[in-house]
Amino acid sequence: MYSLNVRDHFMIAHSFSGETFGPAQRLHGATYVVDATFRRAELDEEGLVVDIGRASELLRAILGKLNYLNLDEDPRFMGKNTTTEFLAREIYEQLVRGAREGQLGAGGPGLASVCVTLRESHVAWGSYEGDV
Amino acid sequence: MYSLNVRDHFMIAHSFSGETFGPAQRLHGATYVVDATFRRAELDEEGLVVDIGRASELLRAILGKLNYLNLDEDPRFMGKNTTTEFLAREIYEQLVRGAREGQLGAGGPGLASVCVTLRESHVAWGSYEGDV
Amino acid sequence: MYSLNVRDHFMIAHSFSGETFGPAQRLHGATYVVDATFRRAELDEEGLVVDIGRASELLRAILGKLNYLNLDEDPRFMGKNTTTEFLAREIYEQLVRGAREGQLGAGGPGLASVCVTLRESHVAWGSYEGDV
Amino acid sequence: MYSLNVRDHFMIAHSFSGETFGPAQRLHGATYVVDATFRRAELDEEGLVVDIGRASELLRAILGKLNYLNLDEDPRFMGKNTTTEFLAREIYEQLVRGAREGQLGAGGPGLASVCVTLRESHVAWGSYEGDV
Amino acid sequence: MYSLNVRDHFMIAHSFSGETFGPAQRLHGATYVVDATFRRAELDEEGLVVDIGRASELLRAILGKLNYLNLDEDPRFMGKNTTTEFLAREIYEQLVRGAREGQLGAGGPGLASVCVTLRESHVAWGSYEGDV
Amino acid sequence: MYSLNVRDHFMIAHSFSGETFGPAQRLHGATYVVDATFRRAELDEEGLVVDIGRASELLRAILGKLNYLNLDEDPRFMGKNTTTEFLAREIYEQLVRGAREGQLGAGGPGLASVCVTLRESHVAWGSYEGDV
Repeated sequence: MYSLNVRDHFMIAHSFSGETFGPAQRLHGATYVVDATFRRAELDEEGLVVDIGRASELLRAILGKLNYLNLDEDPRFMGKNTTTEFLAREIYEQLVRGAREGQLGAGGPGLASVCVTLRESHVAWGSYEGDV
Repeated sequence: MYSLNVRDHFMIAHSFSGETFGPAQRLHGATYVVDATFRRAELDEEGLVVDIGRASELLRAILGKLNYLNLDEDPRFMGKNTTTEFLAREIYEQLVRGAREGQLGAGGPGLASVCVTLRESHVAWGSYEGDV
Repeated sequence: MYSLNVRDHFMIAHSFSGETFGPAQRLHGATYVVDATFRRAELDEEGLVVDIGRASELLRAILGKLNYLNLDEDPRFMGKNTTTEFLAREIYEQLVRGAREGQLGAGGPGLASVCVTLRESHVAWGSYEGDV
Repeated sequence: MYSLNVRDHFMIAHSFSGETFGPAQRLHGATYVVDATFRRAELDEEGLVVDIGRASELLRAILGKLNYLNLDEDPRFMGKNTTTEFLAREIYEQLVRGAREGQLGAGGPGLASVCVTLRESHVAWGSYEGDV
Repeated sequence: MYSLNVRDHFMIAHSFSGETFGPAQRLHGATYVVDATFRRAELDEEGLVVDIGRASELLRAILGKLNYLNLDEDPRFMGKNTTTEFLAREIYEQLVRGAREGQLGAGGPGLASVCVTLRESHVAWGSYEGDV
Repeated sequence: MYSLNVRDHFMIAHSFSGETFGPAQRLHGATYVVDATFRRAELDEEGLVVDIGRASELLRAILGKLNYLNLDEDPRFMGKNTTTEFLAREIYEQLVRGAREGQLGAGGPGLASVCVTLRESHVAWGSYEGDV
């Protein structure tokens, strides 16, 4: 299996609901450094998993709609805890949609799977991986 | 599949038996930077793979029993080569035991798998991944 | 000159005032991975710049008073842009105060300088270095 | 499953064919930081996935035949785009051949799989993983 | 002293003249991950060393004129060895010129110094630091 | 000022004397990832701070005499606490001696200063910088 990864980041405010979260129930924030990993069984005719330029642009466009937001006020996330692993799934869903809609070029729909990893500090990260 | 990772470290002395190990047959030591990765198919009600606070505490407790030891003198490891990959498995076993015993909260037993990676330098690491 | 560095992190929400900041004028947030570097010309009797345990505890205590806060609502920062470089200076001031008050042990007041670096993403960081 | 990873690097010139590549159709170059990851289900008698010394030597020998080359002029790659993911597969093939031929010692042929990751910058990497 | 750093990268082909360089006398290439560090004694009215957006754009513009080139054919570098440390100085000169010409905003000319670091692999980097 | 850095590592066992050190008074160990940074005001005729090949070899030779040792039993360190910052100075002294003796080539004696940084974990490092 081949993989190709591009990295970008976004910065948001949010808070969590539930005693489990302790002081993280207060409004705070995070930088998420995001790795988007695209996988497929065989390379396309040009020798690529996916065009790295298009992959970077798609990731940037998706993160651009999250960047500099207070997620607590975003209708998309009402009633949800926007944990690192939850946000990884959210970005995965948008990358898969973009791949299917052709935003990664002709080869996008042929991807086997996508993995999204969000690094929230030097000691913690969360991820979601699923099929395309 | 969702994943959540926490990182910590420990520092030990040890030596290896067998000509394969060359100068590492002498008593020396290592810093191991440890990544403990917890995986599950679905998030719990609070949007988590596992409570990151509890995960960090469990990892710290396990590493705390290894930290600042000469592993050659530890009865747990008599007759064993405490290689990076061997220690990864050892820590995996203890994390799985902790998960089953509830030390990661109600969701611990529902984990799909755990992966433990020990980084011994900027150029080498070993890991073990297995089911819970 | 000798240096010793310890690393920790904190996560906050804030916003900036001024057109320069563009979308960062909105309430958002950041993870800051913090490097606190202590310098002195000669080692103490035990061979140390400073006790690494005490240095870690002092840094943790200082960051603990910032962690999981909305800095816009903190009286300490009213009317200020809590930029990365501004926060680096703030933490530097508190480390120097702690060193002078003996929280780093007998050798703290003998430090030559302290540098505080805040990494806000994989591509940007700010720092402040000054004398003790 | 156990894994062991060793890291090294090589530096080459090349160009790509196809409009997809934009300015990368010009002759340029790259540093590839290479992670070679070896996996097996059980450790050998000495507690190893593979001898880390032999693994490092094999990787170094393979990269040594690529290092400081203009890949456009190498007969091995005529008519191919030597993309990051393509080169990862190439190095994988050579590692597997070396493992089967005994260059990793008696345990080499017992490896389950090998993964090769090429990091081309702080924001992009490609990899190939396959069975041994 | 305050510092602010932004990171970007470029990828080039080149060769070196002189026996010292051994196999690097052949045409090869490199990825350079570039850290541009701006320093000043006091923050401006908005709490900044320099506008991070402008700093990133200036660095990107400078690297954009080097990216995907064969430096051996660039008239700017005829008769020069474009070593890592040489290129660091080159980029420093361009950043200082941009700062003086106002491309970093009103505060640019007030910078104390600029440091440029080029990371060419996981084990080697070169840098140049000078006044503004 | 120009700088050039090369990285390598070594792994040792040791213990510390003094209540300050707590559990680190027991025999334990560490991996030290070492950055050796060479500085000079002007480049030599070939465009170098120092030949990177020679610098890597000198560092490797110095670390090779420390690697896989129990420092408690080494006559060089009797009665000393081999702390991170102490070892950084030790390696600095040997690099400066090598530079003066010509092991870095004709330009070695012209170096302005050398800095040695020892990274002992993902959260702690120590260094020593001095003139040549």
